[in-house]
Formats: sequence, C-alpha cells, structure tokens
Amino acid sequence: MSLNPIIDLLGRRLRLAVIGGGEGSFIGAMHRQAARMDDRYDLVAGSLSSKPEKAMRDGLAIGLHENRIYSDAMKMIETEALLPDGADVIAIMTPNDSHYLYAAAALAKGFDVICDKPMTNTLEDAKALHRQVVESGHVFCLMHNYTGYPMVRQAREMVADGQLGIIRLVQIEYVQGGKADENDPDPSGTVPWRYDPVRGGPSLVMGDIGTHAHNLVRFVTGLEVSEVAAEAGTIVPGRLIHDFAGAMLRFNNGARGSFWVTQAAAGVENSLRIRVSGTKGTLEWLQEIPQSLVFKPLRGPAEIRTPNGPGTLPLAARSSRIVKGHPEGFHEAFANIYSDAAEAIAARIAGKKADPLVLFFPNSYDGLMGVRFVHKVIESSLADGKWVLCED
Amino acid sequence: MSLNPIIDLLGRRLRLAVIGGGEGSFIGAMHRQAARMDDRYDLVAGSLSSKPEKAMRDGLAIGLHENRIYSDAMKMIETEALLPDGADVIAIMTPNDSHYLYAAAALAKGFDVICDKPMTNTLEDAKALHRQVVESGHVFCLMHNYTGYPMVRQAREMVADGQLGIIRLVQIEYVQGGKADENDPDPSGTVPWRYDPVRGGPSLVMGDIGTHAHNLVRFVTGLEVSEVAAEAGTIVPGRLIHDFAGAMLRFNNGARGSFWVTQAAAGVENSLRIRVSGTKGTLEWLQEIPQSLVFKPLRGPAEIRTPNGPGTLPLAARSSRIVKGHPEGFHEAFANIYSDAAEAIAARIAGKKADPLVLFFPNSYDGLMGVRFVHKVIESSLADGKWVLCED
Amino acid sequence: MSLNPIIDLLGRRLRLAVIGGGEGSFIGAMHRQAARMDDRYDLVAGSLSSKPEKAMRDGLAIGLHENRIYSDAMKMIETEALLPDGADVIAIMTPNDSHYLYAAAALAKGFDVICDKPMTNTLEDAKALHRQVVESGHVFCLMHNYTGYPMVRQAREMVADGQLGIIRLVQIEYVQGGKADENDPDPSGTVPWRYDPVRGGPSLVMGDIGTHAHNLVRFVTGLEVSEVAAEAGTIVPGRLIHDFAGAMLRFNNGARGSFWVTQAAAGVENSLRIRVSGTKGTLEWLQEIPQSLVFKPLRGPAEIRTPNGPGTLPLAARSSRIVKGHPEGFHEAFANIYSDAAEAIAARIAGKKADPLVLFFPNSYDGLMGVRFVHKVIESSLADGKWVLCED
Amino acid sequence: MSLNPIIDLLGRRLRLAVIGGGEGSFIGAMHRQAARMDDRYDLVAGSLSSKPEKAMRDGLAIGLHENRIYSDAMKMIETEALLPDGADVIAIMTPNDSHYLYAAAALAKGFDVICDKPMTNTLEDAKALHRQVVESGHVFCLMHNYTGYPMVRQAREMVADGQLGIIRLVQIEYVQGGKADENDPDPSGTVPWRYDPVRGGPSLVMGDIGTHAHNLVRFVTGLEVSEVAAEAGTIVPGRLIHDFAGAMLRFNNGARGSFWVTQAAAGVENSLRIRVSGTKGTLEWLQEIPQSLVFKPLRGPAEIRTPNGPGTLPLAARSSRIVKGHPEGFHEAFANIYSDAAEAIAARIAGKKADPLVLFFPNSYDGLMGVRFVHKVIESSLADGKWVLCED
Repeated sequence: MSLNPIIDLLGRRLRLAVIGGGEGSFIGAMHRQAARMDDRYDLVAGSLSSKPEKAMRDGLAIGLHENRIYSDAMKMIETEALLPDGADVIAIMTPNDSHYLYAAAALAKGFDVICDKPMTNTLEDAKALHRQVVESGHVFCLMHNYTGYPMVRQAREMVADGQLGIIRLVQIEYVQGGKADENDPDPSGTVPWRYDPVRGGPSLVMGDIGTHAHNLVRFVTGLEVSEVAAEAGTIVPGRLIHDFAGAMLRFNNGARGSFWVTQAAAGVENSLRIRVSGTKGTLEWLQEIPQSLVFKPLRGPAEIRTPNGPGTLPLAARSSRIVKGHPEGFHEAFANIYSDAAEAIAARIAGKKADPLVLFFPNSYDGLMGVRFVHKVIESSLADGKWVLCED
Repeated sequence: MSLNPIIDLLGRRLRLAVIGGGEGSFIGAMHRQAARMDDRYDLVAGSLSSKPEKAMRDGLAIGLHENRIYSDAMKMIETEALLPDGADVIAIMTPNDSHYLYAAAALAKGFDVICDKPMTNTLEDAKALHRQVVESGHVFCLMHNYTGYPMVRQAREMVADGQLGIIRLVQIEYVQGGKADENDPDPSGTVPWRYDPVRGGPSLVMGDIGTHAHNLVRFVTGLEVSEVAAEAGTIVPGRLIHDFAGAMLRFNNGARGSFWVTQAAAGVENSLRIRVSGTKGTLEWLQEIPQSLVFKPLRGPAEIRTPNGPGTLPLAARSSRIVKGHPEGFHEAFANIYSDAAEAIAARIAGKKADPLVLFFPNSYDGLMGVRFVHKVIESSLADGKWVLCED
Repeated sequence: MSLNPIIDLLGRRLRLAVIGGGEGSFIGAMHRQAARMDDRYDLVAGSLSSKPEKAMRDGLAIGLHENRIYSDAMKMIETEALLPDGADVIAIMTPNDSHYLYAAAALAKGFDVICDKPMTNTLEDAKALHRQVVESGHVFCLMHNYTGYPMVRQAREMVADGQLGIIRLVQIEYVQGGKADENDPDPSGTVPWRYDPVRGGPSLVMGDIGTHAHNLVRFVTGLEVSEVAAEAGTIVPGRLIHDFAGAMLRFNNGARGSFWVTQAAAGVENSLRIRVSGTKGTLEWLQEIPQSLVFKPLRGPAEIRTPNGPGTLPLAARSSRIVKGHPEGFHEAFANIYSDAAEAIAARIAGKKADPLVLFFPNSYDGLMGVRFVHKVIESSLADGKWVLCED
Repeated sequence: MSLNPIIDLLGRRLRLAVIGGGEGSFIGAMHRQAARMDDRYDLVAGSLSSKPEKAMRDGLAIGLHENRIYSDAMKMIETEALLPDGADVIAIMTPNDSHYLYAAAALAKGFDVICDKPMTNTLEDAKALHRQVVESGHVFCLMHNYTGYPMVRQAREMVADGQLGIIRLVQIEYVQGGKADENDPDPSGTVPWRYDPVRGGPSLVMGDIGTHAHNLVRFVTGLEVSEVAAEAGTIVPGRLIHDFAGAMLRFNNGARGSFWVTQAAAGVENSLRIRVSGTKGTLEWLQEIPQSLVFKPLRGPAEIRTPNGPGTLPLAARSSRIVKGHPEGFHEAFANIYSDAAEAIAARIAGKKADPLVLFFPNSYDGLMGVRFVHKVIESSLADGKWVLCED
C-alpha cells in the first residue's frame, strides 16, 4: 500500500476542524487520535467548547493556532468555509442533541462531515439529515467505530461472499457495567448530559450502545431488521433514562434474532458480542478479544480467523496495519473509519472515483436506520411488546 | 466424606431399575454411568426396550440377570414391587410422551423415581404428576443435569448467600447446531421421535433444551419467571417442529432477562451460557468450560472461581470429586444428581432426615414449572409476542 | 459400539482387586471410579490398608465382602490366585516405594496388573519389572492418565498420521501450586510420604508430575528423548525434596524441546500444557481445557479440534462417551485407560487378539523410560547441566 | 491528564528525524505511528533510504519537506544539528548492524535518541554506546515495545509493590511461526538482511525476539539473569541463522527460570507468554490477549486484571488511553514508549526533572544487558550447555 494515499492524491493531508471534544471529553481524544493514526488529516481548526476561555485553552493545548480556535461552532463553520486554506472536513463530537444542527450547517456550507453516533435524537432530524447528505453529494461518515475492526470487516466479507450461506439466526448483545451503581451519578447532584433525556435522546442505552449493536448486525449480515418486539426500561431505581433493552428481531430475509443491551450489569466491562448463523456455518466475535473471529462451519472444525491470517479477505486485510499475531484495538478500528472517510473525501475533492473498498464506513443511511430502530424499540416497548414493523 | 454414605446408612447400595436406554440411546448410557459413578446404586432390573428380543439382548449386554429383564415396563413396575429384593428406584429414560405413564405407575407402586426431562409433554400431566409426588412423599428427581455442575451450584450458593446483591438482569442462551442441516434427518425417511410433535412434545427446541435453560436460570437465581414475551418457530425449511425460540423475561422480583435457544446454529456444539447480574456483581458461566465461573464484582477485579478453589461454598465442594485444576464434566454433573437423589432416597427408606445439602436436585415442582414455561412461550408466540403471565 | 465388550467376550466383567486407596487416599477413589465408569470390572477384593482395622472398615465401606478384605497385600495376591472366582487383575495405588514389590508379586502369580505411576523409584527395579512383564506375557498398565484424554489421543493420531509433518519442536510444562506454601506441610509435623525421598523417590517433582510430562511428550510425538540437559532443585526453603525441574531436550529424530515442571508456583492449579510443532503445523493442548486441541497448520487458519468434532480420528473417537460439546474430564480420561486395559486383559484371558486400538495405554516400557528420564535429569543436574545421553 | 504535556512544557511538539523506515519497512511505519499517536512529535526530517531517489520519494510520501529529506543519514545528523529549528530527537529503525553507528553519531551531536532493538550486534558496541549515553546525559530509548503494554507495566508494579512476595520461578516463551517454512525465503534467492549473520547479528532468533523475551523478564521482575545454560541452534534445514533457543535461567536473587524462543513453530502467530511466581502468587500474561493479566494469589481466587480495571496501579493507568473493556494493542504499547521518551526529552530540554513515572522505558543499560545475554546464550550453547555467568 502507498505510504500515504491522501498526500499521493492531493499533495497534502485533509484539513480537519472539530466541534466538541475539549478536556474531559472521552470521545474527543478518540476522534483526534483516529485522525492522526494514519496521517490522513491535519487538524487545523476547532471549537472544543462553547465557553470562550475553555475553547481557547483547550485549542492551544492541542496545538491549534489561536486564529483557528472558535467558541462558536456555527461561526467556525462559516469562517472556515471562506478561508483559502480552510477546513475540508468538520468532525462533530458533541452531545447527541446538537449533532443535527452542526451537521446540517456544515453540509450546507459544503463541508464533508464526520459525526459521532447516534446521528440524531429524533427521527425527523435523521430523515432530514440523510436527505441533505444525499442531495449534497458530500461524504457523511458516522462513527460506528466497531465496524472498523478488521475481524468485523472479515465477518462482513465472509457473509457477503456466501461462506455462511443464507443467514438464519443472529444474536447480538452489548453489555456494560458502567451504570450499574445506583449511587453513580448521584441523582441529587449535577446530572451529566447523558442522564438527561432531552440532551441524550429518548433512550440512553439505545442511543449509547443499542445503535452500535444494531449497526453491527446490519454491517455484518447485510440484512435489515424488518420487525421488532421489544422492552426498553430502567432496572436501576431512581433513574429517568433507560438502562436496558431486550428485543426479538425479524429480518428482511426471514432470519430471526435476539438483541440484548444494558449498561447496568455490575462488573462487566464491554461485552459486545455477535453470533451469526447461516446455512453453512456460524461466526462469533467478541469485542473484548477483537483479533479472533471464530468460524464454525456446518461440517469441519471451528477455525480461529485472525487479522492477516490465512483466508483474510481484502477489506479486512486493508484494515490491519501489522503482521499477524500483534493485537490492534479500539483506536485502530476508530482510525480505520477515519482513514476510509479520508480516502472518500479526497477522491471527491479530486473529482475521482474512490476505491470501492473504502466505502464501507457507516453513513447517513446507516444513521437513519439506527435512529429509526431506537424509535421502533420504544414503540414496541410501549405497546406491550407487540411486533412492530420497522417502516415509516 | 464417607467412602459410601449409602452403604453406611443401609448396609447396601440402592437397587435401581431402568426403563428405556437400550442400544442406540444416548441418554440411557448417561443415566447408567451416572448411577455407577459414585457406587450408590446396583442396577438390578431393566426394561431397555418394548421389543422382547431387544430388551433381552440389551439387558444381558449390560449384565442384568435374565429374570430381571422385562420388555413390558409396566409389568416390571408391578413385578419389582413384589420382589423381596426388588428395585428401590425406577429411572425413566424413554421418549417424552411416556414419562408421565411410567412415573405415575412407579410412584403408585411405592417407588422413588428418577426421570429424564422434560417431565411431561402436557401441562395437565405435569400438574397431576407433581400432585402425586407431593402426596406420595417419595423422591422424584428430574434430570436437569446442568444443575449438577459444581460451578453452577457455586453460582446458586453465591446468589443465595447475597454475594450478588439483588438480582436485576439475566441472560440465558442454549445454542446447538445439531439440527442445522436441513437434510438431516431426511424428511422423507424415518422420522426419529423427537421430530414428531406428538411424541416429542409441542415444541422440540423448548422440550429438549429450552427447559434446561429455564431450569438453570431458576436454579441459579432462585427466582421465577413471572411473565414472558416470546417467539418460538421453525427456521430450517421443511420441518414440523420448533428449532428456535427467543423470549424476553420478567422475574417475580422485577428483574429482567433475555432468553435464546436454538438447535439450528450450524457448527455450534453446545453453548449453554448464563449471565446473572445483581446489584453487587455479575456471574458468568459457559457449559463448554464448566470448571470456570467468572465473578465480576461491582468493585474489584473479575475472579475465576473453580471447583475446590478458594471461596468454594459447601454445595459446590461436595459436588466435586477431585483436587482443583482437574476438570470434571458432563458425566460427573449427571452423577451428582443421581448421587444426591440416592442420599435422599436412602434417608427416606431409613426413615431419617436427609442432609439438606443433598436436596438441591430438580424435582417435580421444577418439572411443572418447566412444562408450564414451555406452554407460556408457545402461548405468547401465538399471541403476536405479547407479554403472558406465567400463572395458571 | 457394544454396550459392554467385556461381557460380550467373557460373559462377565473382569474381577478386580486393589492394593491401597483407603480413606484419605485421593488416587484410590480415582482408580475405583475409573474401574466403574464403563462397567468393565467388578471390584471383588481389596487390601486398602496394612492396618487390619482400617483395611476392614474401608473395605466394607466400599462394599467388599469381608472374606475378600485383606490387610496383608501379599497375602491377598496369594489367596486370590487360588480362588476359583479370584481376581483377574491387581491394581496398585500405594506409595511409590512399594509399586515394585506388589507388581512383581502379582505378575509372578499370574495376574494382570494396573499400577500407579511412577512405576518404581529405582532404575534397577524398573528394568527388572519391565523384563518380568515382557516374559510373563501379561498386561501391565501404568496410570499415566493424561494419555486417556480424547484430545491427547487425537494429537497422537494426527502426529502418527503425518498431519504435522516431521516433528521439530516440543514444549512441555507441568506447573502446579500445591507445594508453593513453605508452611505446608508444617515441617515440624508429620511428613507425608511424598516429602520423604526414601518413599517418594529421588525427586518428588519428577516422580509426581515430571514423569507425566515426559510420558505425554512421548505419547503424542512417538519420539524418545535422546539427550537431556537439566536442573532439578528446591526453590522453597526448608525442604529435602525437589520442587522444580527445568530441562532442554533433544529427541531421537533431531527435534528439540523445552521442559519445565514445578509444584511451587503459588496459585496455579494444574497447568499441564504441551505444544508440538512439525514441518506442517503445530498442536497445542492444555489440560485445564481438555476438550480443545488447537491445530495451527503452516498454511490455513488455526482449528479447534474437539471430541467427536469433525476430523476426529478412531482412537480419539472411541475415547469419548458423549456427543460433541459436552465436556469430559479427568475421570473419563482415567477410565479410558482402565477400560482399554480391560479389553486387553479380557482378550488375553479369552485367548484372542485385542483390537489394536485398545493397546495405546502406557505400559512397563513407558514406565521404564519414565524412571530412566528421572534419573537422567538428576544426573545432568548434578553435572552442571551438561548434556546427558538417555541411554543405559 | 493534560491534553498535551509536551506543548504545555515547551510550547511546541518535539521535532523528530528518522533514519530508515522507507516503503517496505514494517517497523518504520510502527515508529511513525507511535510518534503520532499522542501528538508529542512533529516529524520534521528523515533519511528513509540511502538511495537518493527512494529517500526523496518516500520522504515526500510521508509529508516531509524536500529540504529536510536526506539520503545520507550521517549528513542529516550533522545538518539538523545546525538548523535553528532542527530535530530534537533522532529515531533509528535500520538493520541491526548500523544501530551503533547512527546512535553514536547522533549522541555526539547532542541529539536524544530512540533506537530499535537489539541495541547493537556486538557486545563491544553495546558497552561503548551505553558509556556514551551515560556520559552525554541524553535520553536513549530502546524500542522493547512489549514493555509499553499497560498490563505488562501493571505486572511490574505489582511485583515492585511486593504483591507477589519474593520471586521464585519465571517462565518466558516467545514462539512464532514466521520462519517455519524452509522454502521461505528461498535460499537461492535474495536473502533479506535478517538472514545474514553479519547484518542481523550473531543469532537471528535471539536478536529478533530473544532480546524481547529477556527484557520482558527483567522489566517485570526487576531481577537480572545471573547464570544461563542454553542451546541456540537451527532446526529448519539449510539455514545459517539460529531459529530456536532454549535456556535455563538462574536469577540474582536465587530464582529459577525457563526460556524458550523460536520462529520456526509452524502456524503459531506471536505467542509471547510470561509467568512469574513469587511466594504470594503468580502472574500470567500472553501478548495475544494483552489486556488480560491473570493474578493467581497463593490464597484466593484467580483474578483477571484489566487496563483501568480495579487495582490498576499508576504506571499502568497512565499507559492506557481508554475506558476499561476497550482493547488497546501493539500500536498503543509502542506509542507509550515514544510518549514517555518524549516527556523525558522535553524535561531535559526544559531543564526540569521528569515525572519518575515516565522513566520506565528501556534504555541503553537494558540494551547492554540484552546484547550480553545473547552472547552468553551462545557461549553456553557452544560449551555443551554448561552454566555460564552473565558477567563480563
């Protein structure tokens, strides 16, 4: 592979501006590291906080020039659009309720956009944003980072290649323990935005991790959930937000599935696990050991597939930076999405067709499907768990 | 522990007669090995087949005396009841539709009974049998063998001991691949009894493994499922029987759960997995590595609990025959149930109170709960997945 | 498979007499369970202790008839040899220093023998015993129980079948923590026989587990250790006996190996691990998860081989009692040796040729090789670790 | 933690120049990613190849300015030393035989140095370089990247904190399959530098991975190998270089160890595994699942320690960028070393004392110990495996 396909194509790196991600933000640091990992981007501008002092301090701390530091993100969008060396891309890593505002504004000014998930809080915003993206012809990349893992991509390719036959059964779980303690956060204290349904969306657990789980299933299987019967609720007393959701799934090819997400499983770290069974075999992947994809054929011994191991397919191969046996992790998966988006954006800027292999990153359609799924889960849950069509 | 508590108490082993389990029966060999493992039983009589020639041949092959070999199981029950050294216990390992007949007859003649699961095919039979057991005062042991694993018993004791706090969330899956191949069995050929809903019960997957999953949850948590929303169906074309079932669970203490069983996951061997989360921590157990019970406390590192390892509680300790680090498996778990039942039976015969630690084997109430759960899953499934109360 | 090949052949089970294994003996219970597991033996006589009262109490407790209970093992050998329904087989489960005495006496009286390992304490005894076995034409089965695991047998067959190509590299470790605590046993208290070099042999760790490790390597690879450079020593202060041994190995085909055994690794349970690499691939097996054999071909993904899973070879297939996915453990491995020995003995009694598949249990030649290896390790250790030929 | 401690301290990032690492170099990309990961460095100059055209092409491809691209690395060192905004640090990622030349020259011109391992091919060079580093007072960072893993650092801290008690037993293995195929590389074709003992050093396997294994043991235990008995050799026919080495180790506190490294284990990916046992417990770590550190206390259940999980000590905590449950891998471990070195270098430039927690990266003393160990292994191997003192 080329040492740097962006420099090859454009003679320079892409210019990136960020909204959100100041000191104290977990996801902001992830975005910036992902942008640096493969050297596809120069970070040229940022609005890391809406508070002017904090915006300036944090912007300087990450090495931005003071002229390119903004506390008003909307002003950054307008200003950078006019600069001769202004940003090419806007990356949004703010609380969920502002994703739509910034993404729509950035697209309107001609920027490509990288946006954290969930895409929006409301279905209306999701539809409007997806329409705007399609009409704009610009790149919109949604940070469902788990789709960046080499072995998740290998799973997708094996399914698409027919190695599993017809998909019949899917299990997805995303179980965390971060919200298991009822004293954390203290309900009488300052509530972080995630605990506020207005800012964090209609279902915390679904927005936070349910959309990841749903997107992972769609990414690997290539199927859509056509019907869902669900319960989303609150298991830890004294909360306004959902901390678990269970569902049964029916897919558009007739396959069936089980869905379980919670952030209230005490002591569990980050158990995102998927199992996909087709007529010819089963795939199993667990995020906590991401370099192992277990393939259990209908006939023949179970196989442990690894990045760059035997049988690695092209998308998985280009998603790993290292020889087999050396683990990659969260940061590399995140960076794979950023780097693929970079190639798509650079191709658009250069007026060229992007390599089809770079176009597997989640986009606004994926975001729309995710937001709709959240709403359908809630709809079924409110209707005594009855089956609800995942249609508009 | 005593070298042989049955001999200690009775001066002899228990006398066992078996119904079913002739050549070609998987479960028959399991029962007989379990009875031999700890030397609690002498196998004295058997009706291994209803075909006289096969009954004789198989009976001799396992070392029975020809006088104690029967092709008519009902006649064996009657005859053995009259012999001065007749059987103490009848063990039933026939197709599901005859469990009730033989168990009821054996109880009526004053035998203690060990019975394969599911207890019966119909709810009516289950109720009647449970009533008969209670009224008889005899021992009825149902072979939910997974409850015999030392680490499953450790899990139960840790929950009962309050080490998990209040139980909030439960996940149970039982996934196999044995019925993934649509050409197996050939639908045009001889259909084994399991594929016949009349003999195998109203839902194959629920009777075969769904009742195990349900019983395991009850055994570990001490909770009852109070409501279920479910879908049970057939994913492999050309079948009359269910090969998957998914459900959402509500427990009698307000806890929530996810339930998923299938025998159609190509290539999967025997993935019976449970995760139980309480306010103080989470337990995880997987049948394929049965000697590991992972405890993830709310605060503190995850711990791998092992048979006879540090922190082993009494019921788990008495359920392992060997020093730590040496695996035990399916046979030993099965034998633990047989051996506990033996102690209960011997105590009854001797007119003594059994050690409470031997009384954790599944009984007719567990059987009734299992059969009812099967029926409630089907009821919800037929009612568009709506929540159904698990009550009569 | 037949329900009981011994009954098929002889019309009865084999009659077994045991020496040792009274209350308090770990290994005695293992032997008796192994003999019962597959119903090949009737336990008819026993000398469980040299103390008359204990011998009688323990003998009755396991159900022996008082006439067949002996406190003098030598007398039992003589008496049983004369009885019309006397024992066929003598099983020896006493401290190491008496193995030779009883085995030689039993062979002399025409018994087949099952003997715990190590075969003897001294090389002279080992040679004499092996010679006697060969001359007698009787069955001598040495309890290297780890060779009874289905996946260990699968490994042996894969090597023998050429699936690994030419063997080049071997790693064997057997690490336990049972003797890590310097206060256990209390040096001022009663020292168990294992801590006494006279009774336990010249090197505790080598006799206890080093011979298992050595035998496992030989069993799987079919190779002999031709040279060894070693250090055997005591790492826990205040001991007379060895608690660790490390060695480099050269095999008779030029392969190289690494050997490491210890009982002083605090907190480790029973980590017996082997890795064998040939020109075509590598096998890895760990006793703590015995149902997984990982095969890593030179080209192609790593495979997880399981009992009765795809690719199971005949010896492994006959060594598992259950459908794939259900764990078997220590007891079943132990029983496999007992049951294979039973078939060999029954064939001898019946004057028939045994099925070659039953003849893989360890024998007196394996025992001799093991005792010689112990002595060669000590010889090298005393000679500043220089390479020593494993020859007489 | 600060968003960027280097910018905090110096008002800018460190300026980095690289020698080696052009297109086709695996390790070059690793170094550059590691330097970018935490944004501590600006890559300002490079000599990626000694061929002028390739140096220019590769330099431009990674975004260097043409004025700062050199084909003559020695000239780069001289030139950059004179530039007002010249490099602060020289990173060396060339074949082993040139490490000494460039490192010595860079130190002589006042640069801090980051160097790939092994430090040098000869013991003389290693001693000279270490002396020069000490006299210079500059930072010399050796890329033993495995010491950068959070759980390896946790292991070191737990040992240093006394949580294992006195260290008694150590096992280290580093097993790869990359050189298992005797046709790879084709001996009749172009031999890569690693296969040339002059360029790759006196023992390929020892230089490539043996030094990693040795350094990992020293890093975790804080002990030095005082004596070694070893065999290093060639198991794959037709080679000039070593592809395996086994050794027994004695440590300066009396502990004992086992050492095994090979690159000829067909199908094995990258099994770097360490087990350290002390009087109070055992630690186990396997590079292929780097986020798990298993702690087995003498009394108490085994614990799975994870990055940022309960009980994480300070050095481990600062070595992870992400919340618990999200894997980090090779790149992050590599970057931890680069980022710690950056803080040490920035402190030196600023005339301040570095935070002691940043000073755990391997240095020239570690490099000297590694080169000496390689030579002592060879010395023992040539002397029939006798014990050799690891002293000059």
